[in-house]
Amino acid sequence: MGGHPFYRFCRSALQDIRQQGRYRQFTPLARQADRYPVYEYGAVRPPEGRDVVVWSANDYLGMGVEPAVAEAAIAAIREHGAGAGGTRNIAGTSPLHAALEAELADLHGKEAGLLFVSGYVSNQASLQTILTSMPGWICFSDRQNHASMIAGIKGARGSSCVIFEHNDLADLEAKLAAAPRDVPKLVAFESVYSMDGDIADIGATCALARKYGAMTYLDEVHAVGLYGPQGGGVAERDGVADQVDIIEGTLAKGFGVHGGYVTGSAELIDYLRCAASGFIFTTSLPPSVVAAALASVRMVRKDAWRRERMFERVAAFRARLTAAGVPFMPTPSHIVPIPVGDADRCMDISRRLLSEYGLYATPINYPTVPRGTERLRLTPGPFHTDEMMDEMTAALVTLLGLSDQRKVEAA
Amino acid sequence: MGGHPFYRFCRSALQDIRQQGRYRQFTPLARQADRYPVYEYGAVRPPEGRDVVVWSANDYLGMGVEPAVAEAAIAAIREHGAGAGGTRNIAGTSPLHAALEAELADLHGKEAGLLFVSGYVSNQASLQTILTSMPGWICFSDRQNHASMIAGIKGARGSSCVIFEHNDLADLEAKLAAAPRDVPKLVAFESVYSMDGDIADIGATCALARKYGAMTYLDEVHAVGLYGPQGGGVAERDGVADQVDIIEGTLAKGFGVHGGYVTGSAELIDYLRCAASGFIFTTSLPPSVVAAALASVRMVRKDAWRRERMFERVAAFRARLTAAGVPFMPTPSHIVPIPVGDADRCMDISRRLLSEYGLYATPINYPTVPRGTERLRLTPGPFHTDEMMDEMTAALVTLLGLSDQRKVEAA
Repeated sequence: MGGHPFYRFCRSALQDIRQQGRYRQFTPLARQADRYPVYEYGAVRPPEGRDVVVWSANDYLGMGVEPAVAEAAIAAIREHGAGAGGTRNIAGTSPLHAALEAELADLHGKEAGLLFVSGYVSNQASLQTILTSMPGWICFSDRQNHASMIAGIKGARGSSCVIFEHNDLADLEAKLAAAPRDVPKLVAFESVYSMDGDIADIGATCALARKYGAMTYLDEVHAVGLYGPQGGGVAERDGVADQVDIIEGTLAKGFGVHGGYVTGSAELIDYLRCAASGFIFTTSLPPSVVAAALASVRMVRKDAWRRERMFERVAAFRARLTAAGVPFMPTPSHIVPIPVGDADRCMDISRRLLSEYGLYATPINYPTVPRGTERLRLTPGPFHTDEMMDEMTAALVTLLGLSDQRKVEAA
Repeated sequence: MGGHPFYRFCRSALQDIRQQGRYRQFTPLARQADRYPVYEYGAVRPPEGRDVVVWSANDYLGMGVEPAVAEAAIAAIREHGAGAGGTRNIAGTSPLHAALEAELADLHGKEAGLLFVSGYVSNQASLQTILTSMPGWICFSDRQNHASMIAGIKGARGSSCVIFEHNDLADLEAKLAAAPRDVPKLVAFESVYSMDGDIADIGATCALARKYGAMTYLDEVHAVGLYGPQGGGVAERDGVADQVDIIEGTLAKGFGVHGGYVTGSAELIDYLRCAASGFIFTTSLPPSVVAAALASVRMVRKDAWRRERMFERVAAFRARLTAAGVPFMPTPSHIVPIPVGDADRCMDISRRLLSEYGLYATPINYPTVPRGTERLRLTPGPFHTDEMMDEMTAALVTLLGLSDQRKVEAA
């Protein structure tokens, strides 16, 4: 033990990661369900902890702390226990699983849905299964696609991948046109890109795909629950969901619970159900997770006020930043990235926000974003109050050195 | 839509799967926490459902229905909400996550542990990350390793894989000896193989690995909670846990909840934490799942009676099968496979057990096991009563045609 070269490799790799300023210390944060977005920092139980306002969570609508969602989970635990006890095929399919799959298919206007243990696995397993199904697949993949899509595409041996420039329809068309005619093609892209907060033109992308005989695979992970009259995502908002072959989403962000899914035609989904290793050979989601997600999806579809409130809060926060002269990347989505541009400085600002102000904003460094574009990524939600926004704005003015700058400019 | 050749492919592939008798209809089964292993068949709510005794679940000790485990989950939902709300790095690390990782490391006598959203992902992500870390890795993989290990090994581009015959130390040694000396090597194997129920010689495998300078990666998914004085698995039972570099396990079987993990040296685990895409880019396990698992692991370590009771029940069931002349594969583990040998017959017997007897045993067909070795896989647990065992034995005698055979033999 310890003599294998991998141990030396790990030590050296960790040193490199530290030197590059991208060693991640996870911040211990215990969400307080009755005070979201307030978390307790650094302890399992009060009173050791300290209150922190979290500005980076992906439970965008706060559905994870919605009492009806929590009660649905609790009722399912009391009735069915804490875990599923088996794979979907080995006694792990409760009627709740089927009900949630039907609900998600309906949300996206598709014939069928399929649950996975996470959004990551839904992308990886679905893309890998599709792209190894027939010989010769070419996947046209947006340059900024999520790691989970890349894992599935790269994992599909025998297929090839053509990367098109991010949200660049001209580049996509040139690459589709240059590809052999008679091979199966797939265009894989996202609606809301989570780090830059920009949004794809789904209708135009699908039109191009149709023109060149390609299928479309759309990741709506950062959009489901938030966009569209029922929270069906940007495809629903734009009225183009019927033009997308496969819509993938998560239950862990806008819906506030856990797990991922894909929706599409009945036979396509049935094929994935029968063929995707990452679906078949894994314990199914606990009934309590499924029950909570089902309750959440139904509420989110019905209650547009949550989405409206979130966007109102996002606008209110941007207005404060603008008034205070805090630079932020303008985005058409709910995501507010604050550019910093240096890994060490980004980590330092995040640390000082936490220790000096009781505010938590995750530093986003390489490899999540390219070097030189390091940032804080803020996600204002329905429960961020005016006072919280004033605090964060003032803290950013100080920590980004904007007050000094103003003084200099005024002098 | 619908014109892409993949749609025709799906239709045709599904027809093939049906013709081969391996199309899986998931049986809707709602576990009844207060009556485990009784489930309700076919309906979301009583009184539409019908009671079924499940004989195939992987919640081997019934920890998922243990009231203290359920209450831990419920308390965490009330305190922290239904989901984690982010990745481990984005506000998704609660103090519970760190506590469970420390508990699991301690269970296996390792320095550190790392949680994943499932056992499948823990194998896939860890193996793929290790085997792509340095150039030239060779992975020696047992022929019967689980699909999740194969996914990680195959996904590791640039590495190579040598398959050794199942639990065959002579073959492993021949293959280790034939490999180049100065490349990094890993031996990947399981303790309890879940379909045949046989058990690897962990100490001898590790000794061979040491002799040839290879690291060892051991999947204890079907053993944790069940074997060893504290449920640390077969490696603990055999007193050889310290000889294994990486021990992987699940929270979803013996511990009855959800999720997977690896344990090993502090730096090795820290490297996986920093480098494994399937760990980094995914929402962390809900605090309620983590709290339930933590409660379960602590109880399972302390209470040996659960393990003893399970093995007593397994022995009692085997005695009944022997007395009634029902053939079963003799295994040194808790798993009782009943050979059937034909996919259609296997599915038919499972269907009749359900419809005529209210008993559920999953048919295990190709590709989970080789063609010709189709079987029912039974997992008697602490809550299977003598009466349930009598019922299952009698049903198997009838459905396997053993009573007719006896009559013929007696005539």
